[in-house]
Amino acid sequence: MEASIIVIGDELLIGQVLDTNSGWIARHLNPLGWKIKNVRTVADDSSDIKAAITNAFTETDLVLTTGGLGPTKDDITKQTLLELFGGEMIYDKAVEANVLEVVEKRHLKINPLTANQAYVPSSCRVIQNKVGTAPIMWFEKDGKVLVSMPGVPFETETMMSTEIIPQLVKRFAPSTHIEHRTFVVINYSESVLAMKLDEFEQSIPEFIKLAYLPKPGIIRLRLTGSHTDGSLLTSEMDRLSGNLAAIIGNDIIAFDDMPVEQILGELLKSRHLTLATAESCTGGNIAHEITSISGSSEYFRGTVVAYANDVKQQLLGVDTEILANDGAVSEPTVRAMATGACKAIGTDCAIATSGIAGPGGGSPDKPVGTVWIAAKCADNIVAKKYHFPGSRDRVIDRASTTALIMLIELIRNTK
Amino acid sequence: MEASIIVIGDELLIGQVLDTNSGWIARHLNPLGWKIKNVRTVADDSSDIKAAITNAFTETDLVLTTGGLGPTKDDITKQTLLELFGGEMIYDKAVEANVLEVVEKRHLKINPLTANQAYVPSSCRVIQNKVGTAPIMWFEKDGKVLVSMPGVPFETETMMSTEIIPQLVKRFAPSTHIEHRTFVVINYSESVLAMKLDEFEQSIPEFIKLAYLPKPGIIRLRLTGSHTDGSLLTSEMDRLSGNLAAIIGNDIIAFDDMPVEQILGELLKSRHLTLATAESCTGGNIAHEITSISGSSEYFRGTVVAYANDVKQQLLGVDTEILANDGAVSEPTVRAMATGACKAIGTDCAIATSGIAGPGGGSPDKPVGTVWIAAKCADNIVAKKYHFPGSRDRVIDRASTTALIMLIELIRNTK
Repeated sequence: MEASIIVIGDELLIGQVLDTNSGWIARHLNPLGWKIKNVRTVADDSSDIKAAITNAFTETDLVLTTGGLGPTKDDITKQTLLELFGGEMIYDKAVEANVLEVVEKRHLKINPLTANQAYVPSSCRVIQNKVGTAPIMWFEKDGKVLVSMPGVPFETETMMSTEIIPQLVKRFAPSTHIEHRTFVVINYSESVLAMKLDEFEQSIPEFIKLAYLPKPGIIRLRLTGSHTDGSLLTSEMDRLSGNLAAIIGNDIIAFDDMPVEQILGELLKSRHLTLATAESCTGGNIAHEITSISGSSEYFRGTVVAYANDVKQQLLGVDTEILANDGAVSEPTVRAMATGACKAIGTDCAIATSGIAGPGGGSPDKPVGTVWIAAKCADNIVAKKYHFPGSRDRVIDRASTTALIMLIELIRNTK
Repeated sequence: MEASIIVIGDELLIGQVLDTNSGWIARHLNPLGWKIKNVRTVADDSSDIKAAITNAFTETDLVLTTGGLGPTKDDITKQTLLELFGGEMIYDKAVEANVLEVVEKRHLKINPLTANQAYVPSSCRVIQNKVGTAPIMWFEKDGKVLVSMPGVPFETETMMSTEIIPQLVKRFAPSTHIEHRTFVVINYSESVLAMKLDEFEQSIPEFIKLAYLPKPGIIRLRLTGSHTDGSLLTSEMDRLSGNLAAIIGNDIIAFDDMPVEQILGELLKSRHLTLATAESCTGGNIAHEITSISGSSEYFRGTVVAYANDVKQQLLGVDTEILANDGAVSEPTVRAMATGACKAIGTDCAIATSGIAGPGGGSPDKPVGTVWIAAKCADNIVAKKYHFPGSRDRVIDRASTTALIMLIELIRNTK
């Protein structure tokens, strides 16, 4: 089964708002057997909306639209759908009652503009929007279905989960099974990995696809399969996953689509270990990434960002002599920072960074992008020098990911 | 002038990756006079890509594509463009040299797959990609232009800024002068600011546009003008800028498109002040934002991220009694954290945060989103409680920006 998505709104085409609805819809319809054929983003313009819908229906029997349902004049999706699907605009008492309920819950009063929301085309079936004032409209014509949903992500996500998806499944009775498997791989560049997997790729049947999704420091590999025979699909996916694991082995750090900071968090939790960071050139970014994971307070205790050298001495106990003899960007310094962080913050593990993020501050000896990273877990400590290319942001980003991966590998190698 | 964007990649249609390229392109082409007619997202599928391009060219003379240019088998944009625009695949020595240079900068070695990047259709003009291995291809046929760019946002943004946009302007609007002025405004909601500027907006001539670019905590106002008469344009832009400054006054914290952390940095430098942060719920994000600015080591000395309460005591000297009586999320705690940070890290100024970023950890008394923030400059200290709505990421983001602005205002109000 295939579906198209049409995202409606001027604000998207000037880059003021980022569309997250189409991705959400794809992630939730995919496992149920729908393939999203394409996504069209169009303005609040009647002829553009009509053209997009007409075009989408030549490709798929299901079209989902989001946006353009607000009560203000610039939102014209409802009127456009009336013109496309026929009928007349009618005042729907059930929608009125729902709008009143929603408005009351928000401690607001209904005004003429919100009241307008109760007008709907007679050609649609209404699905009451429990979390917003814009009614959801289900149109059906010549075996094709269009569902018009609001642009507010919270409303579309809530109503899709609770009402729309169950009704779509019932209507289209999925006969195709879809499966995804994701593998997070380290220590490879995309092209080297592709060469290593050349033979494996040739063994993949038509109905399964392999995708490379590189991010700085990691590559996510994704197998996606679709077949009417669900058990055949699962056994093929299992076989390929097994082969992949055998080829790449220990360089797969997760069998799930998780960010590196979450992979580290899960590992720390499973080993009952606590974590601190001591950051110079990464300036707190590693701590920020770690604490972006909800529940990270279970294993993360704190950080010292030591931008100034005397902060490295006073809060992390880095020896004055080390800083004088070896410099701040050196192996002895990051080792001392990691050890000092474990001690000062009271943790089992620590990550430390010191480097030159640029664009200034480089020297022939230590050019911009030079970063020393140390990882410590109990009595084991490793340190390594890197050269990261690119802008300041990229150096910080790469150094952060690399540091997280270094600790993941150290913990995994610790019995 | 109108343009279409085609975003290519399977990963987008299953919702695994969010497209940020089309928004970036829109934000940067819009002020130059291009209207983005629509955005199409399609799979790495030759016939889908062809259909999208053919369709886009019926609507606009300029089509920009991103993605599908990687060295692996799933990327087929280049082959598809060859089939559409004709010619043959040729080995381009200049591209090879560029790929070698990029690969070398990354301290990697070239392999057969990366070498493949040097094959390009003879029907295109290559724009060398200075920050990646995928060549940018400019096709022109019957007065219509297609530019194929990589999917990696960093590569597309860098190359559009430096090469592609100037070439597009030269090609489509050779005699147009363009000027931008940006104003960073605090203490206003978008609608209140719009009411205040109602009369001003009516005084703006046709060839100058005013855009509201709200971000959490700030609104950037941007005037963009384009005219064939460069000196007329400059004098009109000057006149409007003066009027705007007179209306909004002290709530403009910068006359340039700078992030808040840079505005704070400039202020600290001009007053010869140093800065530390003491972060609980923001988890290092404020330090990360401050240090994302090149040259921040001039005023920023360090941070203590105190996620665990005893780290607040031991490294920041927060009184055990305060934590026991008032709790970690309280005015006395953030005041003590700010004071402790100045002392421990040896700075004139400090920002401190403590709150509940969620989704867990809330209580009826202190619901998720409750954040206490303190700012200290010399002997002046202010603290305030906030309730930020939304997800964990949004709470952290809002709290960080608010904290930076709080210190900016404190310093500006300090004689």
